[in-house]
Amino acid sequence: MQLSDIRPYLRRAQYHETDQMGIIHHANYIKWLEEARIDFLEQIGVSYGALEKLGLVSPIVAVSCEYKRMVRFGESVSIAIQVKKYTGVKLVLAYTLANTASNEVCTIAETTSCFMNREGGIISLKKDFPAIHELFSQFA
Amino acid sequence: MQLSDIRPYLRRAQYHETDQMGIIHHANYIKWLEEARIDFLEQIGVSYGALEKLGLVSPIVAVSCEYKRMVRFGESVSIAIQVKKYTGVKLVLAYTLANTASNEVCTIAETTSCFMNREGGIISLKKDFPAIHELFSQFA
Amino acid sequence: MQLSDIRPYLRRAQYHETDQMGIIHHANYIKWLEEARIDFLEQIGVSYGALEKLGLVSPIVAVSCEYKRMVRFGESVSIAIQVKKYTGVKLVLAYTLANTASNEVCTIAETTSCFMNREGGIISLKKDFPAIHELFSQFA
Amino acid sequence: MQLSDIRPYLRRAQYHETDQMGIIHHANYIKWLEEARIDFLEQIGVSYGALEKLGLVSPIVAVSCEYKRMVRFGESVSIAIQVKKYTGVKLVLAYTLANTASNEVCTIAETTSCFMNREGGIISLKKDFPAIHELFSQFA
Repeated sequence: MQLSDIRPYLRRAQYHETDQMGIIHHANYIKWLEEARIDFLEQIGVSYGALEKLGLVSPIVAVSCEYKRMVRFGESVSIAIQVKKYTGVKLVLAYTLANTASNEVCTIAETTSCFMNREGGIISLKKDFPAIHELFSQFA
Repeated sequence: MQLSDIRPYLRRAQYHETDQMGIIHHANYIKWLEEARIDFLEQIGVSYGALEKLGLVSPIVAVSCEYKRMVRFGESVSIAIQVKKYTGVKLVLAYTLANTASNEVCTIAETTSCFMNREGGIISLKKDFPAIHELFSQFA
Repeated sequence: MQLSDIRPYLRRAQYHETDQMGIIHHANYIKWLEEARIDFLEQIGVSYGALEKLGLVSPIVAVSCEYKRMVRFGESVSIAIQVKKYTGVKLVLAYTLANTASNEVCTIAETTSCFMNREGGIISLKKDFPAIHELFSQFA
Repeated sequence: MQLSDIRPYLRRAQYHETDQMGIIHHANYIKWLEEARIDFLEQIGVSYGALEKLGLVSPIVAVSCEYKRMVRFGESVSIAIQVKKYTGVKLVLAYTLANTASNEVCTIAETTSCFMNREGGIISLKKDFPAIHELFSQFA
């Protein structure tokens, strides 16, 4: 599987996500990134449910988001993901959100996540879960 | 302790809770009810954290909400709670939300919750946690 | 168009909608109802965007929800809607949420909405927007 | 008024903000930043409501957040704000979130906001609202 085989995640902006400025409130994008990330992980073969069954959780350690164009209720965005960096311990994903009607980029974002066991100890996928490590490595 | 000793829960309506109608989105009130309920439980001596340490969770099995007057960003509401019914297994709470500036009731609501152990089995507080049972009974 | 032509709304339970009980937090269902309602309105020919262009908003005046079975992250629910009552001024919708894997009903709900102009005045669709009135009437 | 006169914003972590990892979901912090920002603006004399009455809105154009320590239900955080940069057009705020029990920093964050009129045109506070410009300048 190659990055070009990955479908972007499609998301429709919901009414309950608007604010009184008449736009999608900026906090909701962080949830959209998560939905896109979980979809991406599933597509490359690392479902979040499977991770949790292995006793792994993947907390976000950093997020950044640059809002270039507002999104309004009823509009749809496509969210494309690239693995920007993967160290065996940390995973940095870059997101490009585009309005599906205009194809204009509305937001770019980045998340850094790590992997932990249920006790909160940092896990090296490279060392402890080499099969998952391989999956991330091939997209990095 | 008597019901008259319980302070209502005060909540300020936040910007991120507005929608493009320019009012607080109705889904947020369900979160406000939860905050008020947890505050009420703490005041009568049953903190939610303590329940969870006893291996108890208290899922909501029904909620209803009647919106009488809109609430806007920056306004504050007071949330008063009464125990409407308590059976030893189920707890029905009634909520009255009033605008603190006008004292007008803006919303009335009701929640029904039960008590479960971590495996999802229904717990009778009356039978298994008589001390907590007493606390709820005195307000019913 | 008949009620049997309406597709139920499909919704996947998201990670950011879970709580520390390990289930979808009950407040999120109120948002799901809204998404299903807006989808239903679109299907019968009354898009929410079109309503807003007519200067109409449709606030929720009451909501009730009965949670019968928990929903967990990654599960999908189908949301079917019926017009329970329509008076020309108020619209009461009944919702049945079923787990798409098991077909078991997990939640039933009801919303009452009215129609207002931007100044907050109650609108009678029957009187002022007879075409929209017809659309609702045929499903009541 | 000096920066040392500004009270940090206190926020209790709510149950509905947890996720199934048992921690506060990272998207909620973006809402906390907004609450702290609005409180900060009020304290320095620029209430968000007043801005909106002047026909101004203040959209977020960028946000970043670094999560250093998890926050759990029932814990409280204090959010201190500094004006990192103010250009007359853009306002960059830096946030330090600390657990009030341990005084440990749990999160640092930054937001960039601009100022727009209702038509979506960028406003220079320096040029068009010199009094507000002065207020921001004294903290920069």
